[in-house]
Amino acid sequence: MKRLLSAQSARALLVLASLAFVAHVFAQTDPLPSWNDGSAKRAIVEFVRVTTTEGSPGFVPPPERIATFDQDGTLWVEHPMYTQVIYCLDRVPDVVAKKPELKNREPFKTVLSGNREAIARLPMQDLYKILAATMSGMTVEEFNAEARKWLEAARHPRWNRLYTELAYQPMLEVFRYLRDNAYKTYIVTGGGQDFVRVYAEKVYGIPPEQVIGTAGGTKFVYASNGKPYLTKEPKLLLNDNNAGKPEGIHLMIGRRPYAAFGNSTGDRQMLEYTGAGAGARLKMLLLHDDAAREYAYGPAQGLPDTKVGTFTPALYDEAKKNGWTVISMKNDWKRIFAFE
Amino acid sequence: MKRLLSAQSARALLVLASLAFVAHVFAQTDPLPSWNDGSAKRAIVEFVRVTTTEGSPGFVPPPERIATFDQDGTLWVEHPMYTQVIYCLDRVPDVVAKKPELKNREPFKTVLSGNREAIARLPMQDLYKILAATMSGMTVEEFNAEARKWLEAARHPRWNRLYTELAYQPMLEVFRYLRDNAYKTYIVTGGGQDFVRVYAEKVYGIPPEQVIGTAGGTKFVYASNGKPYLTKEPKLLLNDNNAGKPEGIHLMIGRRPYAAFGNSTGDRQMLEYTGAGAGARLKMLLLHDDAAREYAYGPAQGLPDTKVGTFTPALYDEAKKNGWTVISMKNDWKRIFAFE
Repeated sequence: MKRLLSAQSARALLVLASLAFVAHVFAQTDPLPSWNDGSAKRAIVEFVRVTTTEGSPGFVPPPERIATFDQDGTLWVEHPMYTQVIYCLDRVPDVVAKKPELKNREPFKTVLSGNREAIARLPMQDLYKILAATMSGMTVEEFNAEARKWLEAARHPRWNRLYTELAYQPMLEVFRYLRDNAYKTYIVTGGGQDFVRVYAEKVYGIPPEQVIGTAGGTKFVYASNGKPYLTKEPKLLLNDNNAGKPEGIHLMIGRRPYAAFGNSTGDRQMLEYTGAGAGARLKMLLLHDDAAREYAYGPAQGLPDTKVGTFTPALYDEAKKNGWTVISMKNDWKRIFAFE
Repeated sequence: MKRLLSAQSARALLVLASLAFVAHVFAQTDPLPSWNDGSAKRAIVEFVRVTTTEGSPGFVPPPERIATFDQDGTLWVEHPMYTQVIYCLDRVPDVVAKKPELKNREPFKTVLSGNREAIARLPMQDLYKILAATMSGMTVEEFNAEARKWLEAARHPRWNRLYTELAYQPMLEVFRYLRDNAYKTYIVTGGGQDFVRVYAEKVYGIPPEQVIGTAGGTKFVYASNGKPYLTKEPKLLLNDNNAGKPEGIHLMIGRRPYAAFGNSTGDRQMLEYTGAGAGARLKMLLLHDDAAREYAYGPAQGLPDTKVGTFTPALYDEAKKNGWTVISMKNDWKRIFAFE
């Protein structure tokens, strides 16, 4: 039989074919396809490799694999205003209809006026009054139903999309990648725990018991027919911002996370707490530096800060000093939204 | 060939063999071997069948399968005193050594006297002082290490066994059975959340994040080297008893349980809340009516009640009225402890 190839050529072809095969498999199984190759993507992949490779010095037993994520500005768009604040402002007319005595009282009067600039200027304590009035005083089921109805209709002015469509595709891939590697993924948000729970399962695949947020108390009461139910009370149990994040993590999880993602000073203590644990720990901060595709704000940018937390220059310095990874939305993300 | 059996005999033999095989398989796969056949065992098996059979009107999607369990007196022995109270009393000498000013102050003075009868007579507010002094004022890690050390040595006076060996074998089987059917099992205890978390994973297979208990606050602080840590504060965040149980369930899980197990008035609201949900719900109360193998107390018994909650006659009546299942330790449990 005539030889079609020399042994050498055959070997070379085999090597080429193998390389092509490996590249093909890699392309198929890239767990983070919306991420550009770069230090951020490499940090995530390396962290997963080290903590899940048995025998590796950084190996973490599966029950201890906890990853925590801030929500607003880390998992979805937080500009021009937190979605929950928009929800609460939208609820004011209904609340005033039930309690007409609020109609001429501030800050409700300003909200009812519809004057966007005046509303944007409301101080934080007025916003808290609006949050308390619209997030309490009903049963847990009533609140869930109202929030769900709103979320199915309200749209972001810039994209004309439902707010729930504005989740970041690269972060959804991180969720899946971590879960495929036995990580339990938690949201740890300054936002209202009950509000985020309404959509977290559908949007992020995160069940209610893995949503930690700013939480008000509930009260167990009986209806006149003897049936018990829970009402939402205007009583703050957990302010899940800043130091409240590690405190909330201890309260609700009882383990220190191995990975934490944030985007502002509100997440600083969560990242510090994560980083203070032994072994490999992933600490990541998302930098909004993409005015074209999303927004640019933070250290090098110019958007006005009207929010609880922001990515300050001091936080940027701390990240650099402690070896946290800064994700550049502009450079690290190939695609931002699933609908793109 | 000579026929050894008539067709009729062969058929009869086949039926017998099949029955023997089915019985064998059933015996092998009985998920609750420490339970006697009876209404309690049947209620559990039927609940699991109904809620996990696709197409059944009572079917519950796996993410919603939540089961909650009281701990003291439901999962392990609570007499003559809650294990945690014994722990706190044992810790008093160490606390006084660090704060000598407590030495001559009540209730510490009485505890240090070693007078068991006087200690047993301490009123509830004195017990709270002891709990606060021994469960706070240290880092989370220090507390865990102390509690772990104690649990590895302290023994129950009656059985001379570690407290952690006094978990009820039938309940461990319920845990496994429910988990095998995609139920997420939670402890919802009036005991200290951090204390129970120290051993719940090893004893019950329940991770820290699935232990809800009476919880004090923590505080995020920095050591002089800049490393952050959490200290346990003498501030009550959640009193996880009575109405605090459903309120704690909402705070920490955010879903209504489909199954709940308790043994006292402290569990009443949790069972009522569970029962108020739609569909099949399992509500079970353990009655301690076995003085020979464990203890007898509650509706028909005589042990003095020095506890937070007890199985009162009124609770027994409510259970009967609402169709809750009462588990008789004496009649429903074939075996109580794994070491028997």
